[in-house]
Amino acid sequence: MTAVLDGARLTLWAPAGLGEVRPGDDLAALVGDLLARDAEGSGDPLAEGDVVVVTSKIVSKAEGRVVRATDREQAITDETVRVVATRERPDGLPPLRIVENRLGLVMAAAGVDASNTPDGTVLLLPEDPDATARSVRAALRDRFGLDRLGVVVTDTAGRPWRDGVTDVAIGAAGLRVVDDLRGGVDSHGRPISVTVTAVADEIAAASELVRGKASGRAVAVARGLSRFVRGGTGPDGDGPGARVLVRTGPDDLFREGTAEAYARGVADGRASR
Amino acid sequence: MTAVLDGARLTLWAPAGLGEVRPGDDLAALVGDLLARDAEGSGDPLAEGDVVVVTSKIVSKAEGRVVRATDREQAITDETVRVVATRERPDGLPPLRIVENRLGLVMAAAGVDASNTPDGTVLLLPEDPDATARSVRAALRDRFGLDRLGVVVTDTAGRPWRDGVTDVAIGAAGLRVVDDLRGGVDSHGRPISVTVTAVADEIAAASELVRGKASGRAVAVARGLSRFVRGGTGPDGDGPGARVLVRTGPDDLFREGTAEAYARGVADGRASR
Repeated sequence: MTAVLDGARLTLWAPAGLGEVRPGDDLAALVGDLLARDAEGSGDPLAEGDVVVVTSKIVSKAEGRVVRATDREQAITDETVRVVATRERPDGLPPLRIVENRLGLVMAAAGVDASNTPDGTVLLLPEDPDATARSVRAALRDRFGLDRLGVVVTDTAGRPWRDGVTDVAIGAAGLRVVDDLRGGVDSHGRPISVTVTAVADEIAAASELVRGKASGRAVAVARGLSRFVRGGTGPDGDGPGARVLVRTGPDDLFREGTAEAYARGVADGRASR
Repeated sequence: MTAVLDGARLTLWAPAGLGEVRPGDDLAALVGDLLARDAEGSGDPLAEGDVVVVTSKIVSKAEGRVVRATDREQAITDETVRVVATRERPDGLPPLRIVENRLGLVMAAAGVDASNTPDGTVLLLPEDPDATARSVRAALRDRFGLDRLGVVVTDTAGRPWRDGVTDVAIGAAGLRVVDDLRGGVDSHGRPISVTVTAVADEIAAASELVRGKASGRAVAVARGLSRFVRGGTGPDGDGPGARVLVRTGPDDLFREGTAEAYARGVADGRASR
């Protein structure tokens, strides 16, 4: 069943002043320091039911997932499990590859990122963003003496058929990642048959609106979503993570780009005669 | 160039009590009544720079876009411009069709919806959600004496490669629908080369978190996004609408489902020998 809205008010904010994150930094400590300073300024400390959102970029930086920009194409290859589609690019640039990466995410360039990184470098996605979300959650719960706390790790991704990018959740802990309304009833009292809402992705998208791409703010807090937030530790407290949002495999209707699937069909058709 | 964050705080709320919307209702008046009652209760009236979010469902209901459930498959066919992919379903159900509809949106069942509708009926998407957003914006600007006001019309959609649905913007007025950061610089002072953020989609997703699927709340207000909100009337004030978020056409890498493209290739390969 679905939960009752708590107050039906959602507030998000993005504290400034994290500073540059460096390889080996204790990310949970840096985020905790930022939130503690923010609370001093605002008188509004982290509270039960809050969700802390951090960008994959600062996770990757803390993990030292930096490679030289000249090694970018090889880095994409190394992160790739499966090429989904490619697009030729002008000016002698290598083709853009849309691939399924180690994390199951289908992304352009495997999620390898060249913005907001030191000159001459690119960033790979974090090693295991669900694990990072769990460890940040554990540290923040301890530090702020909270039980029910959620953590989301976001990344920016394009979508088929829609212009522009949005942020999605690539890591999560302490959160009901999807709101499964199957078994619930709609406002007419009829069963809701198919709706599973990607709550963690909607939180990621909302957080982008307060962080902004150019401001370099990498941390946000979302308050008013406590119905989705878990208490406790271990698997019960952390929940399944953002990995459950990945839907690829044989049933994927868009497993391959149109041109790639068509070319494979032509080859098979020629061979089959 | 990108705009400065205003306060870096975003608040969303979803007033209860809209009631059932019926064919022929004046939607802008109903939404205005709801917001006026909400302001009386909260002491927090609609303000300059706010964005009012309404679901496509209430727009469709006011427009009388209701058809009998028994006519559902024909209604999907009528809304379809192009079939993108199909998936067989068990139990003798007709195949699920993922199609590009009149509005350019690629959606399962062309966006035809059977939840939160009266028994035995399904709802088509609004006739022209950008036009609706413009007329709601004009009415609310007048009624509340505001200049800078945004309106978003949302619908719920699935995505390839991700489980769960999120809300996206299918109509918009008075809003910078995309935040085009090309030409801006990142926090290292380097040009941001490729990032266009789908702001309207992120607002739609955020609003879903306060509206909820089961609660039947169909209106939300987002405050703190005034950097994206336009003043004035006419094309300059209304802006381009959510139609600019549609990206389909010959360049679409996922113009056809994998199975459909493969089958077409096999047929062409056989014929070409």
